[in-house]
Amino acid sequence: MSIRIEKDTMGPVEVPAEKYWGAQTQRSRDNFKIGGDSARMPIEIIRAFAVLKKAAAQANNELGVLPKDKLELISKACDEVLEGKLDDQFPLVIWQTGSGTQSNMNVNEVVANRAHVINGGKLLDEKKIIHPNDDVNKSQSSNDTFPTAMHIAGYKMVVEVTIPKVQKLRDTLAAKAATFKDVVKIGRTHFMDATPLTLGQEFSGYVSQLDHALKALKNTLPHLSELALGGTAVGTGLNTPKGYDVLVAKKIAAISGHPFVTAENKFESLAAHDAIVESSGALKQLAVSLMKIANDIRMLSSGPRSGIGEILIPENEPGSSIMPGKVNPTQCEALTMVCAQAIGNDSAITVGGMNGHFELNVFKPVMIANFLQSARLLGDACESFNDHCAIGIEPNHPEIKDKLEKSLMLVTALNTHIGYENAAKIAKKAHKEGTTLRQAAIELGLLTNEQFDEWVVPKNMVGSLK
Amino acid sequence: MSIRIEKDTMGPVEVPAEKYWGAQTQRSRDNFKIGGDSARMPIEIIRAFAVLKKAAAQANNELGVLPKDKLELISKACDEVLEGKLDDQFPLVIWQTGSGTQSNMNVNEVVANRAHVINGGKLLDEKKIIHPNDDVNKSQSSNDTFPTAMHIAGYKMVVEVTIPKVQKLRDTLAAKAATFKDVVKIGRTHFMDATPLTLGQEFSGYVSQLDHALKALKNTLPHLSELALGGTAVGTGLNTPKGYDVLVAKKIAAISGHPFVTAENKFESLAAHDAIVESSGALKQLAVSLMKIANDIRMLSSGPRSGIGEILIPENEPGSSIMPGKVNPTQCEALTMVCAQAIGNDSAITVGGMNGHFELNVFKPVMIANFLQSARLLGDACESFNDHCAIGIEPNHPEIKDKLEKSLMLVTALNTHIGYENAAKIAKKAHKEGTTLRQAAIELGLLTNEQFDEWVVPKNMVGSLK
Amino acid sequence: MSIRIEKDTMGPVEVPAEKYWGAQTQRSRDNFKIGGDSARMPIEIIRAFAVLKKAAAQANNELGVLPKDKLELISKACDEVLEGKLDDQFPLVIWQTGSGTQSNMNVNEVVANRAHVINGGKLLDEKKIIHPNDDVNKSQSSNDTFPTAMHIAGYKMVVEVTIPKVQKLRDTLAAKAATFKDVVKIGRTHFMDATPLTLGQEFSGYVSQLDHALKALKNTLPHLSELALGGTAVGTGLNTPKGYDVLVAKKIAAISGHPFVTAENKFESLAAHDAIVESSGALKQLAVSLMKIANDIRMLSSGPRSGIGEILIPENEPGSSIMPGKVNPTQCEALTMVCAQAIGNDSAITVGGMNGHFELNVFKPVMIANFLQSARLLGDACESFNDHCAIGIEPNHPEIKDKLEKSLMLVTALNTHIGYENAAKIAKKAHKEGTTLRQAAIELGLLTNEQFDEWVVPKNMVGSLK
Amino acid sequence: MSIRIEKDTMGPVEVPAEKYWGAQTQRSRDNFKIGGDSARMPIEIIRAFAVLKKAAAQANNELGVLPKDKLELISKACDEVLEGKLDDQFPLVIWQTGSGTQSNMNVNEVVANRAHVINGGKLLDEKKIIHPNDDVNKSQSSNDTFPTAMHIAGYKMVVEVTIPKVQKLRDTLAAKAATFKDVVKIGRTHFMDATPLTLGQEFSGYVSQLDHALKALKNTLPHLSELALGGTAVGTGLNTPKGYDVLVAKKIAAISGHPFVTAENKFESLAAHDAIVESSGALKQLAVSLMKIANDIRMLSSGPRSGIGEILIPENEPGSSIMPGKVNPTQCEALTMVCAQAIGNDSAITVGGMNGHFELNVFKPVMIANFLQSARLLGDACESFNDHCAIGIEPNHPEIKDKLEKSLMLVTALNTHIGYENAAKIAKKAHKEGTTLRQAAIELGLLTNEQFDEWVVPKNMVGSLK
Repeated sequence: MSIRIEKDTMGPVEVPAEKYWGAQTQRSRDNFKIGGDSARMPIEIIRAFAVLKKAAAQANNELGVLPKDKLELISKACDEVLEGKLDDQFPLVIWQTGSGTQSNMNVNEVVANRAHVINGGKLLDEKKIIHPNDDVNKSQSSNDTFPTAMHIAGYKMVVEVTIPKVQKLRDTLAAKAATFKDVVKIGRTHFMDATPLTLGQEFSGYVSQLDHALKALKNTLPHLSELALGGTAVGTGLNTPKGYDVLVAKKIAAISGHPFVTAENKFESLAAHDAIVESSGALKQLAVSLMKIANDIRMLSSGPRSGIGEILIPENEPGSSIMPGKVNPTQCEALTMVCAQAIGNDSAITVGGMNGHFELNVFKPVMIANFLQSARLLGDACESFNDHCAIGIEPNHPEIKDKLEKSLMLVTALNTHIGYENAAKIAKKAHKEGTTLRQAAIELGLLTNEQFDEWVVPKNMVGSLK
Repeated sequence: MSIRIEKDTMGPVEVPAEKYWGAQTQRSRDNFKIGGDSARMPIEIIRAFAVLKKAAAQANNELGVLPKDKLELISKACDEVLEGKLDDQFPLVIWQTGSGTQSNMNVNEVVANRAHVINGGKLLDEKKIIHPNDDVNKSQSSNDTFPTAMHIAGYKMVVEVTIPKVQKLRDTLAAKAATFKDVVKIGRTHFMDATPLTLGQEFSGYVSQLDHALKALKNTLPHLSELALGGTAVGTGLNTPKGYDVLVAKKIAAISGHPFVTAENKFESLAAHDAIVESSGALKQLAVSLMKIANDIRMLSSGPRSGIGEILIPENEPGSSIMPGKVNPTQCEALTMVCAQAIGNDSAITVGGMNGHFELNVFKPVMIANFLQSARLLGDACESFNDHCAIGIEPNHPEIKDKLEKSLMLVTALNTHIGYENAAKIAKKAHKEGTTLRQAAIELGLLTNEQFDEWVVPKNMVGSLK
Repeated sequence: MSIRIEKDTMGPVEVPAEKYWGAQTQRSRDNFKIGGDSARMPIEIIRAFAVLKKAAAQANNELGVLPKDKLELISKACDEVLEGKLDDQFPLVIWQTGSGTQSNMNVNEVVANRAHVINGGKLLDEKKIIHPNDDVNKSQSSNDTFPTAMHIAGYKMVVEVTIPKVQKLRDTLAAKAATFKDVVKIGRTHFMDATPLTLGQEFSGYVSQLDHALKALKNTLPHLSELALGGTAVGTGLNTPKGYDVLVAKKIAAISGHPFVTAENKFESLAAHDAIVESSGALKQLAVSLMKIANDIRMLSSGPRSGIGEILIPENEPGSSIMPGKVNPTQCEALTMVCAQAIGNDSAITVGGMNGHFELNVFKPVMIANFLQSARLLGDACESFNDHCAIGIEPNHPEIKDKLEKSLMLVTALNTHIGYENAAKIAKKAHKEGTTLRQAAIELGLLTNEQFDEWVVPKNMVGSLK
Repeated sequence: MSIRIEKDTMGPVEVPAEKYWGAQTQRSRDNFKIGGDSARMPIEIIRAFAVLKKAAAQANNELGVLPKDKLELISKACDEVLEGKLDDQFPLVIWQTGSGTQSNMNVNEVVANRAHVINGGKLLDEKKIIHPNDDVNKSQSSNDTFPTAMHIAGYKMVVEVTIPKVQKLRDTLAAKAATFKDVVKIGRTHFMDATPLTLGQEFSGYVSQLDHALKALKNTLPHLSELALGGTAVGTGLNTPKGYDVLVAKKIAAISGHPFVTAENKFESLAAHDAIVESSGALKQLAVSLMKIANDIRMLSSGPRSGIGEILIPENEPGSSIMPGKVNPTQCEALTMVCAQAIGNDSAITVGGMNGHFELNVFKPVMIANFLQSARLLGDACESFNDHCAIGIEPNHPEIKDKLEKSLMLVTALNTHIGYENAAKIAKKAHKEGTTLRQAAIELGLLTNEQFDEWVVPKNMVGSLK
């Protein structure tokens, strides 16, 4: 591997000749060999940095502290990062300094060097037109850029991936609830047979859970839309031009298309990441909801012969080479595994969030890496579950009908006609002898076949509540 | 112990003669010997049941299914529960059936029997004027009453204990932030010396955290205000009179003074407790915020000689019999222990929340017990921390001044006057020789005493951001 | 309430006249109004302190620093604490100083005052024969006594409650596994029908889980048996006589009957509570195992008509007033709620454990309170589950037989006789037409009734593995 | 992209022409678009599968059910997987079926096709010499292979990465403890000044924590060494030759060089992953220990002017461009972030572990992915922390001496000479006036300069305990 020499205040460092990064990035690579390639800082953070660096350059220029030519060069380099052209220039892992300083410097170095090259220069030039600290990092500090990148990346992921994909599943379940509104089936409480409801009602509960989960998630967005940028090193805004914090937030909002605003209090923004804790809490709630829903689907579709089997789910892959009807609920499984992950990630985020000291929380990379993973996985898994399972769910009418008819719980419909005592007699006899309620009722001489038909009508037991 | 015989559908049971409870309560006592006295169902749940039973009686009466005399007797018994007169009548533990059925029956039995006695009857009377199921539990099921009691008790605790007590601490910290607004001190990032800020700014970050935490907690109240009552056994509302669910929620709102409403979807309300998960998530966020704040106070007050020592906290108890000035941050310790508990409780609630099946979640008692504990402890601990610590916090001016003056970080103020290179020379010399910046600067001949006084002014470095 | 005045280095304090506690206990009561009565320091910690104080007095006497008369008085008072005669003398809550100093002083004060009274003195005497600090706390510090009490109480609970009660359940399940060894039933993977196994095999998996869980728990006992006592304030053993640490551990072992030893490294013992973290981790593993087992029992007993229903569990209470056979798995529910609690408590313990600073971890009370609760609840719940559920589990033979016979999965037995292709044809036909394998096989002319009887023998499919 | 057609029982699928995988792998790729490239099944699992497939082929051959030529071809293909030559042939994500069936099939397909090609065949050949199910998967099921791969990969990671790297750090800390054994310094309890100890004693506490953590981790290895292989579909061992389970475990032990044994109970091995829960619990304990240690190092090195500053840590990268001495504790930060991750991962594993049903736990991939990440990250981070921080830790003698000398806590040394009362007077005066104990003592006329020198000797206060 060909190398070149880069320098920082600690002296020279060997860097791969063709890479845009500089000394500080290289030192981090050398000093933090933790977790290997799969431990990379999420690319969404790098992209968020590109948005932020471009916005900062715009604001700096508008406020008179960065010349137009430098703005243009920085912007071009940032655009290339945004287009994914420089993805291999960001080799650092999550497990670095807890402020994310090294990833900030990685971006500063790559943008500066790339801008220099865009301008016709060479990586080996002693003097470069753009300086990573003085230009790319102007009016910034790692301490306010990294949390800003966290919010940009986190907000985008939630709004562009999690919410729409969960919404898609919610809508499918709502459509199913409507379609199944007249499918009367047995209810189950304590995992035991109970009074009937419709399959549509059962699904409406899932829809309501997701509606509440989405509302809870959206409630967290205002906090997540607050940006630390402008606070610089400790939150005071040292070395920023007047009006910079408000302006740079506007620029970020414009570039990203999301309603970001400057944080009212920058001291919180650097020293705590409660917004991430808050949104992660909402993601955890979503995971809890999805766990319930996916478990129900898994159990309702169980069988084919010895389970509950009241619904049919799509067969996406061979469940067993010889066993027809063994349709494993693999999408439920993937989804519930994702839920377990999101719940675990929330714990990691909680640990990080509680451990800030004084003016800086230094668990930033671990917090945002877990957050982005949860937000993405929950979205992706909902979409996968939607496309490959939920949309194909159908009632297994014969099984539903059979279970409903043999249910002893329907006896409650007779209370008002023959009295509680007599109704109980029927149920007890049927249970003891393993027969149907109808058979027991008639054998006891308590009612006729016609009366049974008239009085024991499950669909009259499912109420008028939604 | 004198006993009497009570009966249920499974036969006779021996009950302490003087107790109001009946057969089903007694069976639960006998079958669930788990955790002993300290494992009692929280009394707040019992009180919430009294609200609910009274409201149900009112609604039942208004809808024509319960006569006025029975309403009045039930109301009187419920009022006694609310006044705490019958607290020793509720012996059941949290660790019973997961639907809380047995506590529902405990309340039904006690209210029925007490009503009978209020009416002049005796516990030994074969026939009683009020029936626990037919009257007290009318238009209800354990499956909708217990979740209703959960929301009543949980909402009350959050609104009456947690929020006002946290607000009290928030207001104290805000007053401190205002008082300390001109106290310039050294900042710390990575636990290392950094550029200065004011003590007021540092405290403003805490205020901002609590403001966000309170907002997040309030965001969860609408979900928590939704009541399951009216859903009965599986959510369909079987056996309830028309209009009952809306009416009974109004009655509960009137009795409790809180804006409860009937849940739009009762199937969710029985089968999932995402509202508890949601609010607990907000309590966990609050715990995370408080952990950061209390840790900062703990560390800022450390010393008296070998710590950071920038603030003084009240001395509430002897820290050491011989060691003056050893003021242990005991309120910080109690508060952070409470935070650890709330974080653990959120895990327990998460486990409970994710495990609902079909029409019923059967982790109700463990979920609400943990929730009530977190909500109360966080409130109480904030008040204790406020009253015995926060209100007495004072800056330790000599220590603050000393640390600020000897800080090398102030050198950044010289950049614009003598250039970055020269400024760095001063800092390096001072660090190496263990002297002050002033001394190093003068020895290097880079500026005069007067220039140092004019240029190195920490209060000019704390910015105009809040 | 009648009061008396007690004094400490901060001045006079009003104490209830008849109580044995003194000034420092009272200050804690006044300063830590957090959580109310249900937040009391666990009584097991108080008892452990009594063991420790008695042992320290013995060791101090043996090493010549405490006279025999004082030893005897202190011992008598400690014995009264151990006998539960003074339980109302320990009013402090968990949420106090994180070192537990105040509970240590509570014990010191009560033992000293009670000893004085035993000796014929009065609480109002100016001078008392036993001094709480100089005598009762001799050669001790809160910093080494509280962790010692944690280990004594924790070890006892695990060894006397958790392990024997879990073992009881394990033995019942092992007996069931033996009894059910020939009950062939359908297996289920992915919650879907699979190849058969015996009910005994299924239960043997539960036994194996509990065996491993018990082994894991026992593995943690050596760490938990290490005592901090002798480390005093920071672990150096300042102010202890030579040989004291080893001797006092022997005394504690003798009094308690458990193999306690002095910790090899006292600095760890004060500054970290990894032994509690370790044992709690094992309790969490146990909770995970029990959650699986209880869920299986819950599901296997589901029905009576529309569930899996392969086993019958005891009917302990009315499941439904009208619905015979609705035997709710209430013991499973209590047990799984306890598991949720233990998992949550482990999180709280983890948070406490990770937050020690320098020479002292100040999350001691929250850690041990959660630990004791988990250890007790898991033991109690296993015993309750054992006594009221596990011992009464019976196979539901007709249901097992029916599900086994209609299973399509048995077709795999035909592979070696008629080939995979033909076997699959049979299964597909049976699935499609909803018939039995036998019927499909005969209709396809692939085998005779007799051949079916000979070849499709589920009990030949359950292997020779245990 | 050039494609070829592969078939399974559901019909034809398009597969990239040059890839070795087949229809089932491709279906999984199409059906589980969750998490993108960073969500790949860990390569360690793929390698563990290669060990297992080779061992199974050997055992099958030895037991007479697989011919020698097939054994050799399968072995060669497996060796290529082990050498990393086929890493791009395993594209599936963690978020697939919870049994890991699809990754098992991915390995079966790749090994079969690669073996065919090694044998001179072509991917387009209609008939191949090795069949993925009949040969590569012979005597196996996904249900026993995936848990076997979990244990192989998990055990290897713990034994080859975690333990040796933690041990390395432990040994460095032990060496430091020895080197620092005479460096007397102030102790800190409640984050407040306390009696002295040596820096060596402080570090010995860390060593003791890691010794206990390593012992706890090793305690879990026997459970982790148990292999499910031989249980096949539900644990009964259907379709395996006699003696296969014991033999195949021996083969795996031989190939891997680790003492794997067949699990005594296969039903547990498929239906529960308590061994992973158990080892993850030990990793969590390790994380808790490391969090304490890294936090102490972070705080002890704080400064350079306004912190505790008693130790110096290596300067690995520029902490601040202008601020000499700002040596950020970046290795502490990386390590504590890793600890947060391991704690979160343990939560995810707990959720997965508790959710097994009947004969199969279907949270296998999420459990092992989290486990491998924790085990690797903790090892890597300990090594990084060791190499770039711990080995370079030095006492900051002037700072230690200064803090020790000005400590008021040393006054306790005077108790035995001038009495407690007089000693307290000195301390109070010194604290009030901000002077040294010496100055206060002399001003009070309680002792001479010489007496102070003789009696106040911190090194005499650090005891004889280790």
